[in-house]
Amino acid sequence: MKKIMISEVGPRDGFKNIPEYNPTEVKVNISKELLASGLKKIQLTSFVSPKAIPQLRDAAEICAQILPQYPDVEFFALVPNLRGAANAWDCGIRSVACVISVTESHNQANINRTREQSFADLAAIRSAYPHMHIVLDMATAFVCPFEGTTPLAAVLADVARGYALGIREFNLCDTIGAASPTQIKAAFDALIPSYPDAKFTVHIHDTRNAGILNTMTAIQCGVQEVQTCVGGLGGCPFAPGAAGNTATEDLVYLLNRMGFDTGIDFSRLMKAARLTKANVTGNYSSHQLNIAEEFCFC
Amino acid sequence: MKKIMISEVGPRDGFKNIPEYNPTEVKVNISKELLASGLKKIQLTSFVSPKAIPQLRDAAEICAQILPQYPDVEFFALVPNLRGAANAWDCGIRSVACVISVTESHNQANINRTREQSFADLAAIRSAYPHMHIVLDMATAFVCPFEGTTPLAAVLADVARGYALGIREFNLCDTIGAASPTQIKAAFDALIPSYPDAKFTVHIHDTRNAGILNTMTAIQCGVQEVQTCVGGLGGCPFAPGAAGNTATEDLVYLLNRMGFDTGIDFSRLMKAARLTKANVTGNYSSHQLNIAEEFCFC
Repeated sequence: MKKIMISEVGPRDGFKNIPEYNPTEVKVNISKELLASGLKKIQLTSFVSPKAIPQLRDAAEICAQILPQYPDVEFFALVPNLRGAANAWDCGIRSVACVISVTESHNQANINRTREQSFADLAAIRSAYPHMHIVLDMATAFVCPFEGTTPLAAVLADVARGYALGIREFNLCDTIGAASPTQIKAAFDALIPSYPDAKFTVHIHDTRNAGILNTMTAIQCGVQEVQTCVGGLGGCPFAPGAAGNTATEDLVYLLNRMGFDTGIDFSRLMKAARLTKANVTGNYSSHQLNIAEEFCFC
Repeated sequence: MKKIMISEVGPRDGFKNIPEYNPTEVKVNISKELLASGLKKIQLTSFVSPKAIPQLRDAAEICAQILPQYPDVEFFALVPNLRGAANAWDCGIRSVACVISVTESHNQANINRTREQSFADLAAIRSAYPHMHIVLDMATAFVCPFEGTTPLAAVLADVARGYALGIREFNLCDTIGAASPTQIKAAFDALIPSYPDAKFTVHIHDTRNAGILNTMTAIQCGVQEVQTCVGGLGGCPFAPGAAGNTATEDLVYLLNRMGFDTGIDFSRLMKAARLTKANVTGNYSSHQLNIAEEFCFC
């Protein structure tokens, strides 16, 4: 059975901009339920300005309550800059994701920095925290809302640039959920054989109902770790109301049925998804959550 | 560019049991809008007892208003028995779909007949209407809500039985939307090379968010015609509230982006989908319909 690592981003990407403030206790309970299903990798929070993302202002408290209890789980956090990385490190986080869009216009719209500045930040974090595991989150790796289809050459150039800075993990993000399987295949067929000591992962939005297909296409190309979000929360700021990230439970159901080893108990995962929906207001695009428990095929 | 025929089932499967009666004029307008997008195959209605499915009691009127205007389009209808086939023929329909579930318990629950009776009906229709094109709609071809995973051997046996009766087109239906790509591949890899003079198509529900993946898997296996439903209407009686059929617009967007030749204008198709949503109450599981027009990437 081929192992697939599911990297759950709900506690960060799913909760980052929901309408009401989500109390720390709720976040902790949901994370614990997710962990109880067998998940071994979770994006727990982000270390950003509480003014920019007030929903995640309890990052330190979350880390204090969760990290010590799960020594065998890889927790990681999103950090926008050196200060965020410092805060994450001080809270016990040893793995961070730094976002740089492949397209200039989106990088500026998303984090208000030029790509040059972002790569300088990345180098600074790399240099200040040599023992921190750093993932380069490559936003708009397939399609940009401002520039259209992202050329594969631009993706390859960014991977080379990150690699030269010492980065060995790259997360290709379909930020607006408009990638096609053709693009996914072209990207990973070019990257995976070229960097045998690097890891490539995907983060796919389900905006246009291709989330599962594109994620499975990446897996067929040899990607062994994929990001998903409980409930299909998250979403795309350039398609308000549209489906969010690919739902963890929708993907896990399918992978388990196909004989992949996800290490996740689907029924237990559904319990976590239902707990999330009962406690957190949001745009749930999960299909499994719409199926009454008695009709759930496990 | 590889041609893929999209077979639209909205006017029948999508409208069969929506809450309010859908006036003939609305149905005709929606069908015309769908046809304007370039669709060349439509399941227009069904010829069933108006007591069983009152929504489609205007089958004859629909045929009279639509059929003469589109000589280059293949219209087909669902018929449950010889009487339905006779009514369809009299209305100018020359292609019909006869449903027989691969599993006994579902056949009885669905159409209140044993599989033996259903095969006898099929033989009777075949014999009474030798010039009618007959498709065998194979319900529960992958998973049955009562019997679990359908054995591939049972599917192969039903195809052989239909073939012996003169059937040359088989539509494998994922009735409850629980098929896995592994099953899809196994079925078509076994069937397509074995019956070079037969046509195989799929009808996939999106219940568990695998509609697009399973449909694309069938296409990769050599299936050249797939059924979808405008708006992702339809649905699964064994998963109330769940997503319906795979949405035509979600699949067409992707196929067009991947360079397949669907012959369908995506923007025009979205116009038909929006017209449908504006006029027909139902459970829309289309993702594209949730994206505001200005954010639609075409």
